[in-house]
Amino acid sequence: MKSISILGSTGSIGCNTLKVVEHLGDIRVVAMSAGRNMSKFAEQIAKFEPELVSCEDETCVAELERELKQLGVREPYIETGESGLVSVATHYRAETVVSATVGAVGFVPTLRAIEAGKRIALANKETLVMAGELMTKAAAKSGAEILPVDSEHNAIHQCLRGEKRSEVKRLILTASGGPFRESTREQIAAATREQALAHPNWDMGDKITIDSATLMNKGLEVIEAKWLFGFDADQISVVIHPQSIVHSLVEMIDGSIIAQMGVTDMRHAIQYALDFPTRRENCLPPLDLASLSKLEFEEPDLDRFPCLDLAYEALRAGGTMPTVLNAANETAVRAFLDGKIRLSEIAEINASVMRDHKSNVITALDDVLHADSEARSAAEQLLARSANSAAISN
Amino acid sequence: MKSISILGSTGSIGCNTLKVVEHLGDIRVVAMSAGRNMSKFAEQIAKFEPELVSCEDETCVAELERELKQLGVREPYIETGESGLVSVATHYRAETVVSATVGAVGFVPTLRAIEAGKRIALANKETLVMAGELMTKAAAKSGAEILPVDSEHNAIHQCLRGEKRSEVKRLILTASGGPFRESTREQIAAATREQALAHPNWDMGDKITIDSATLMNKGLEVIEAKWLFGFDADQISVVIHPQSIVHSLVEMIDGSIIAQMGVTDMRHAIQYALDFPTRRENCLPPLDLASLSKLEFEEPDLDRFPCLDLAYEALRAGGTMPTVLNAANETAVRAFLDGKIRLSEIAEINASVMRDHKSNVITALDDVLHADSEARSAAEQLLARSANSAAISN
Repeated sequence: MKSISILGSTGSIGCNTLKVVEHLGDIRVVAMSAGRNMSKFAEQIAKFEPELVSCEDETCVAELERELKQLGVREPYIETGESGLVSVATHYRAETVVSATVGAVGFVPTLRAIEAGKRIALANKETLVMAGELMTKAAAKSGAEILPVDSEHNAIHQCLRGEKRSEVKRLILTASGGPFRESTREQIAAATREQALAHPNWDMGDKITIDSATLMNKGLEVIEAKWLFGFDADQISVVIHPQSIVHSLVEMIDGSIIAQMGVTDMRHAIQYALDFPTRRENCLPPLDLASLSKLEFEEPDLDRFPCLDLAYEALRAGGTMPTVLNAANETAVRAFLDGKIRLSEIAEINASVMRDHKSNVITALDDVLHADSEARSAAEQLLARSANSAAISN
Repeated sequence: MKSISILGSTGSIGCNTLKVVEHLGDIRVVAMSAGRNMSKFAEQIAKFEPELVSCEDETCVAELERELKQLGVREPYIETGESGLVSVATHYRAETVVSATVGAVGFVPTLRAIEAGKRIALANKETLVMAGELMTKAAAKSGAEILPVDSEHNAIHQCLRGEKRSEVKRLILTASGGPFRESTREQIAAATREQALAHPNWDMGDKITIDSATLMNKGLEVIEAKWLFGFDADQISVVIHPQSIVHSLVEMIDGSIIAQMGVTDMRHAIQYALDFPTRRENCLPPLDLASLSKLEFEEPDLDRFPCLDLAYEALRAGGTMPTVLNAANETAVRAFLDGKIRLSEIAEINASVMRDHKSNVITALDDVLHADSEARSAAEQLLARSANSAAISN
């Protein structure tokens, strides 16, 4: 019986992780955290009986206690806030930690889990985007293994099995192109929240779905790939593949391309990360190649999707620049989801915050947190300024 | 410096092997054989300076000596016939033997090379089709490693790197579908030699190109895959993929599909087999995914291409049945190339010879050779009978 803990159990990845746990039947969830969705969290606790749980704050605790009482479930040990997340991430019995919180909140707990030598099933890409060097150095020191749950990186991990790093020419991440693949610049600028949230192939959380619409998600994945696999920006490329059947590819120096394909269901990658190096059957439908009409590939258009270009720029600048891009982007996406800015303004805010930032070397956690909070403030200021000018023009 | 010998140096695979040898620069060709194309053979000898060569018979020797004299090249040691092929295949200095003769003639020399513990770069698929069990048992005994040069099996070999056999669900061989993929039964039956030789994607020898047109080639590859990788008929499937970009795929038990892609040039697979487990750069153009219009997949149509079904039938019957199918097919294809029968009659002759054969267990080389020659006679008799009735009806 393996033991795992889950950071972010009520989100999209968290829920799918629990489905995989149920299917496999030999994994015990010893700890898990959730943000504010206490009714779902209570149901999960009732079913999986973790020893330790964590939620956002005392208000959530009160709500969770009510929900658990209603379900007639014995209370696990409950913690809150970042220290609660860290407790979940470093639970002594968890061999694997599923890092599935969205955004920067998963950063410190994931670092602590890495320092504790846990295997990390990593779905929180911001962790590596914010501080890839810090994380990978910590992993090298503790022996922690980082297994990507993102379907693209998981695919690359599979393609690299049995291959030598020195014989890899480049990694090729596929991108669906999102809902605006065929839209004009103007259509993208005027896109509504609902249009942006309508991803053609994947059913994911809100933040990542917006990032998919701007291709920022792919940009963050390029940065993530650098740290997961140790390749430079010019060895990582992106190809648009609208069908999302080929999850990613690796080109070898002899010209051979190894690709990983599958149905679009996150449970594949989650099970792979939990079970690696073993593969086991699952209950998902197989991919029927002959029923696919066709697979297409095209170059990404950086003019219409400037966020992808910003990510390469941040990766090449190095140091705190990716941290800053990630923080600005999180702030801007939140503002878009709240109806405060247009979709195209996300890239404008990101670019503007990056332009005003001088990249610093990251040597410690504080460097990351400082760059992160500065970039958030800078983005907020831009948002406030733009809201003021909008108010004036109204 | 590695040393290799080549069975069939003037054929399509042989010539490409020599191009790879030239490119890599650290492989010495110590022995090689050719059939009857002595002017090309002499040029190759002049360039690669093997110690030992072999050709079909004394007439060829005389011609080769003339050609070499004309080129001012010092004669290597020359042998002839099957014993000459065996000498080439077992040359004491060759670590790797490229088995690239077409048809049954490569069978005995390849077996001898396997028994001598050489690495076999296998392009002669008839070897495994005729006597897969004998060959693989001999390889297990001598420690010989068989590396497939066929692009499909080579792709499967690449997809299986780093994977456990017990975690493989099935192998999926791709087939271009050949020049008659979209033709009716009637059009296929009436196809001319030129139409059948016009393969859409690959530039190969005549025999294999006809086998591609009937899908017999894919059938032989299914049988070959069984012996190369140790999977049963129901774990090997075929999918039509007209673009020939995905060279083959492996489906794992967790539903993940690993595919190998590349440009359609045999030098990829040849270099892979010569260099395994190392990958090195080559001079071939890279595959540009974004420039592909699309990749398509469809089920093979066994009604229009009965040869594929015959191969599964032979594989399930086991013993000498695949030997018999291969022998009948070689005879029938020869007759088609000679303008004696229609394309659709190849399958009819194969089916008829199989129907009249009772499969025997193969325990020794003689069982194979006996079944092979009986099937050839049976096919020849069918051809003679059909020629007679055609003569009468004329």
